Amino acid sequence: MTRTVFVNGEYLPETEAKISIFDRGFLMADAVYEVTSVLGGKLVDFEGHAVRLERSLKELDMKAPCTKEELLEIHRKLVEVNEIDEGLVYLQVSRGSDGDRDFVFPDPETTEPSLVLFTQNKPGLADSPAAKKGAKIISIEDIRWGRRDIKTTQLLYPSMGKMMAKAAGADDAWMIEDGHVTEGTSNNAYFVKDGKIVTRPLSNDILHGITRKAVLRLAEEAQMQIEERLFTIDEAKEADEAFTTSASAFVMPVVEIDGVALGDGTPGALAKRLREIYLDEARAKAI
Amino acid sequence: MTRTVFVNGEYLPETEAKISIFDRGFLMADAVYEVTSVLGGKLVDFEGHAVRLERSLKELDMKAPCTKEELLEIHRKLVEVNEIDEGLVYLQVSRGSDGDRDFVFPDPETTEPSLVLFTQNKPGLADSPAAKKGAKIISIEDIRWGRRDIKTTQLLYPSMGKMMAKAAGADDAWMIEDGHVTEGTSNNAYFVKDGKIVTRPLSNDILHGITRKAVLRLAEEAQMQIEERLFTIDEAKEADEAFTTSASAFVMPVVEIDGVALGDGTPGALAKRLREIYLDEARAKAI
Repeated sequence: MTRTVFVNGEYLPETEAKISIFDRGFLMADAVYEVTSVLGGKLVDFEGHAVRLERSLKELDMKAPCTKEELLEIHRKLVEVNEIDEGLVYLQVSRGSDGDRDFVFPDPETTEPSLVLFTQNKPGLADSPAAKKGAKIISIEDIRWGRRDIKTTQLLYPSMGKMMAKAAGADDAWMIEDGHVTEGTSNNAYFVKDGKIVTRPLSNDILHGITRKAVLRLAEEAQMQIEERLFTIDEAKEADEAFTTSASAFVMPVVEIDGVALGDGTPGALAKRLREIYLDEARAKAI
Repeated sequence: MTRTVFVNGEYLPETEAKISIFDRGFLMADAVYEVTSVLGGKLVDFEGHAVRLERSLKELDMKAPCTKEELLEIHRKLVEVNEIDEGLVYLQVSRGSDGDRDFVFPDPETTEPSLVLFTQNKPGLADSPAAKKGAKIISIEDIRWGRRDIKTTQLLYPSMGKMMAKAAGADDAWMIEDGHVTEGTSNNAYFVKDGKIVTRPLSNDILHGITRKAVLRLAEEAQMQIEERLFTIDEAKEADEAFTTSASAFVMPVVEIDGVALGDGTPGALAKRLREIYLDEARAKAI
């Protein structure tokens, strides 16, 4: 089946989905994005992603391409026409183009942002074999730019990190800056020691994960202990268990860090429980 | 006149020049670029740019889209059909796309890189009024990623820097990391004190400027003193003169830093002389 995608107001077959080579998303990574999960044909925490998108746009003085209601309608239409039961909706807004290349932003009065959305069909996203097995991660240096709280398309280093992990026989990488773990290449990072969940506090250093927020709230509601503080990779290696959160993988147990097995080397009880609780609520509240 | 541009093997009118929304240059800034100046209808230091492009591709495990000879032919054809006497040729190579989005690099055996080139007509590029006036710069924090030696399209922060400069009534910004100037938003940075040219040595922290290399060689040939070392913005403010180098602006005198006029606030003699020497050689050796 050929996907139908959305590009600047039009629903098109994926093979015809193109943007101008002068688009600043292509020339200068002057673009932000969101990825929303689909469970049972419904959108998980659309509101959270829409609010974060607004924040990203505001931080970069970028115009919104349309209203939140219009975005919701496009998401729903793409899920419907592409018959997505479980999967993802990717959304990208770039600053568009005034027809040439310049570092200076084009006049927002005369230049419209570009809006692109497409679905990814992922049957078995919730009942994921990868989550049952757990992820092996390696640690790498964090050399990304300083505003990781803005969800920009400057994803080359995270991509390189995934490739470094692959080359090392692992599944993903956690990044380290000034001796402390920041986050995973496309997820927030946590470890659990003596029943307490430890994760880095929000700042410009990490993505303000939509799933992070929901999972920490659910953990608190389940009377779990949470400590938001800086932590080292050695602390994580000595933990009872570890996990990551992201919109596309929910709660993913981590079973190995830099070759060191955590606990008995299988997904931890707390991570498994949080995944269940999160998925239950995500399904129940999806729209 | 509608520009003719080059996109993946085809010469097209600029209005029809489009790439897939799945191109990794668009989705992940997984792309590198070069900008070559044109003087008298000829390419300035094409060889230098071609060699740096090869290095950028190698550092990112990216395939070359074609041979150096083919690149030269495309550059020349675009200059010819667009009747460029003075201007620029922009070239971008991205990792292409296997038709979907994933952090993991697509299989290089089955995925071709994308190649895009276009010209920018800039009459008066050499005899520039901006260079006669000199640039006012501000200093800003350098929060870019750690591999600035690779010429990637992750240019959002340099763009933001130009906007910060504009908002401050200046022309450009120099960036500061760990107390030392790294470089300008799209150029290398220099100051002159007591006849000595000071600039930061090459490392992963700055772009390995093609124009930097040529200008330092010409300065040496002209018996000028050069010191490659870290320097602070305060040293630059107390300098006799300052300048930047880039492929698109050659040698650009700097006349003000953070509101402090350098010397008498007009372009310095050494910068003006270096600009002349550089342009003379560039014209003589252009191909």
